[in-house]
Formats: sequence, C-alpha cells, structure tokens
Amino acid sequence: MVYRDTFQVMTGGRGCYPVTDTVEQHVRQSRIQAGLCHLFLRHTSASLILCENADPDVRADLERFMSRLVPDGDPLFTHTLEGPDDMPAHVRNILTHADLTLPVTGGRCDLGTWQGVYLWEHRDRGQRRQVTVTVYGE
Amino acid sequence: MVYRDTFQVMTGGRGCYPVTDTVEQHVRQSRIQAGLCHLFLRHTSASLILCENADPDVRADLERFMSRLVPDGDPLFTHTLEGPDDMPAHVRNILTHADLTLPVTGGRCDLGTWQGVYLWEHRDRGQRRQVTVTVYGE
Amino acid sequence: MVYRDTFQVMTGGRGCYPVTDTVEQHVRQSRIQAGLCHLFLRHTSASLILCENADPDVRADLERFMSRLVPDGDPLFTHTLEGPDDMPAHVRNILTHADLTLPVTGGRCDLGTWQGVYLWEHRDRGQRRQVTVTVYGE
Repeated sequence: MVYRDTFQVMTGGRGCYPVTDTVEQHVRQSRIQAGLCHLFLRHTSASLILCENADPDVRADLERFMSRLVPDGDPLFTHTLEGPDDMPAHVRNILTHADLTLPVTGGRCDLGTWQGVYLWEHRDRGQRRQVTVTVYGE
Repeated sequence: MVYRDTFQVMTGGRGCYPVTDTVEQHVRQSRIQAGLCHLFLRHTSASLILCENADPDVRADLERFMSRLVPDGDPLFTHTLEGPDDMPAHVRNILTHADLTLPVTGGRCDLGTWQGVYLWEHRDRGQRRQVTVTVYGE
Repeated sequence: MVYRDTFQVMTGGRGCYPVTDTVEQHVRQSRIQAGLCHLFLRHTSASLILCENADPDVRADLERFMSRLVPDGDPLFTHTLEGPDDMPAHVRNILTHADLTLPVTGGRCDLGTWQGVYLWEHRDRGQRRQVTVTVYGE
C-alpha cells in the first residue's frame, strides 16, 4: 500500500521549524500500521533533519555552527544572484539532507525519545516550502 | 512491485555529472506509477546529490567550497596510499550521501523545479561508477 | 512484505563500530530476496555511515577530521549540559546521517566491494545504541 500527500511549511526565514506533528497526522491518515514514512523536500536551499527536540539551544547552536562553517557573502562564491545567503543555502542543503525515511510502528512514527523532525530554512527571507510524504507498508 | 537495475557513469575526474535523465528512463521502464525510486552508489569516494540544476556556477562553487573544507594532501590524513585526493574523497562522501530516495508520481520522478540528481566524483582521475536503482510501488 | 526488528550496539566511546554482519543476519532472517533494507538510528548524537571497510586508517582519519571540524568545548556552543562533547555530537550527527537504505539482492545486502556499515559513536563515554531495521520487498 502506498499513501501519498504533500504539505506546506511557511517559514519566517532562517531557523528550524518543527514538523513532527504534521508528519504524524499523515501517518495516521495513511492507516498503515507497519512500514516506512518517506519525507522529500522539493527545494535545494532548505533541509529536513532529525534533531534533538528538548532544548531549543541545540537548534540555536546548530545555526551558529553552520553560519560559521558556510559564511554568508563568502568571496569564494560566484553564484550570488539572489544575495549573500543564496549559495550558502545550497551548500547547507548538500551538507545535510533533503530526504528522510522514518520507521512506522503501530500506526505511528517510531522515533527515538529525543528525536524530532525539523524543516531547516537556510534563506534569510521566509519561503513557502513543500514536502512530499509517502507512507508505505501494511 | 520491485524493479531493480544498475547503471554506470564514466566520470572524467572531479565534478558533478547529471544523471536525472538516466534515472527517469529507469522509472519509465519500471512502469511503476506511484511509489519511490531509490538510488545507491556502490562507492565510498563519490556521492549522489540533489542540486540546483539551472546555474552551473552552483556546482562550481560547491566544488570550491569542498576543496577548501577538505583540502587535498592535508597532513592530518594518514590514509594516502592512492594519493592526496584519496582520504579527502572518503570524507566528502561521508559529509554528503551515497543513497537518495525520490518520490515517483504519475510514472515520473517527482522532483522540485530546481532539483537535479548528480553523481559527484571526488577523485581526480576518471572512474567507472555504478549506481543501483530500485523502483517500488504500484 | 515488511520485516521489522531492532538491534543494540554497546559502544565504548567515540569511534566507528562495524554492524554489516548484524544487518546481514536480519536480511537473512527476513527471507526477502529482492528489495531494500532500511536502518534507522534512534539517537541524535551518533551516526550510521557507509565507509571504506579495508583500511582502519580511514576511520581514524575520519575521526581526526571531525574532531577538527567540530571541536569539543567550542565556546560557540551554549548547549553544554552533558559536557564538552555534547553539542559537537549533535552537529556531527546532522552533518552525517541517522538513516541509511541499502539494496537487497539474492537475499543479501548488495553493497559495493569496499563498503561497510558502521555505527559512529560521537560521545566520549560508551552508550547503548538502538537501530531499527526494516526489510521490505519480495
């Protein structure tokens, strides 16, 4: 059985946006009890990540680390059409992930206690981001 | 239903090689309408990535960024048997991905407008790279 | 058909622990001949990676590279509750992967000659790590 849908996340610029609850809703709607849930981000300047879900400092530290590793406006970059955060956003996407696969058990996403799913926006300005959800199994 | 095949990419040294069309051919051959397409690179010194597909400068900038982040001939590395690009190639592979899963909708890979699939060669010399394709669904 | 199980890895602190044999056992038990094997790590301070499996120097170099890229005790980090290796472990996890999907052919994991599956522990102290295995196909 294959369940397929898409959801949108309106981001307000750089940062991590929790999507675990939205993903869980889709898994419930799919009525699939045992299998996998695949998430696919249709963009090259944001990411889907599994991150520690208890202390917001973790996401803030993550943002600071990435900003230092891939600095905005780095003179190394020639692809600067959309501003100093354009190429860094692509690099951040490549260094992380655009797709995630999660186990589904008992009709729910079977994550570890401290794992949450986040959409990580890498552009300064808010964007409308689309995620394709596929749930498959029995 | 499970479709399985393998394709080869002859690379001409470092750089990104587009494989979206080859992947699409396999999805069509599979006759699967709705499901997922899994790509698996059988190597530890190259990557499979989803990257911006419009401006070649993005791939050039990506290459420059990686060359700075993981410099060839770095004295940190002891695994240098096959030359100064040997260990950096393994690190680049670990920092990116060897496998990708893409949604299949209406018998096609359902990527975002600006997403292309690339095989990123990390070795200086050209190599014969093998990718295992699995399409599954209905 | 969906096969599901979980296995544990007791780590002895930072480093790469081979799990290919354990994964192969699960694939055999599943009796699935052609399909995919999904591995999911239920933690945000370790990783699952595919790495060169012949020369242990590769894993040692990888460790050295990551220790330099994401230094323990970096004053950039504010999330330091569990010590100087706490936040670096989360960053290392995000820069690598918590889930992997491998092809299954002829009832076996169909990896490249030089590919091995490793659990990469990022915490200094040993931990009990849980991996969820899902094998699906025909």
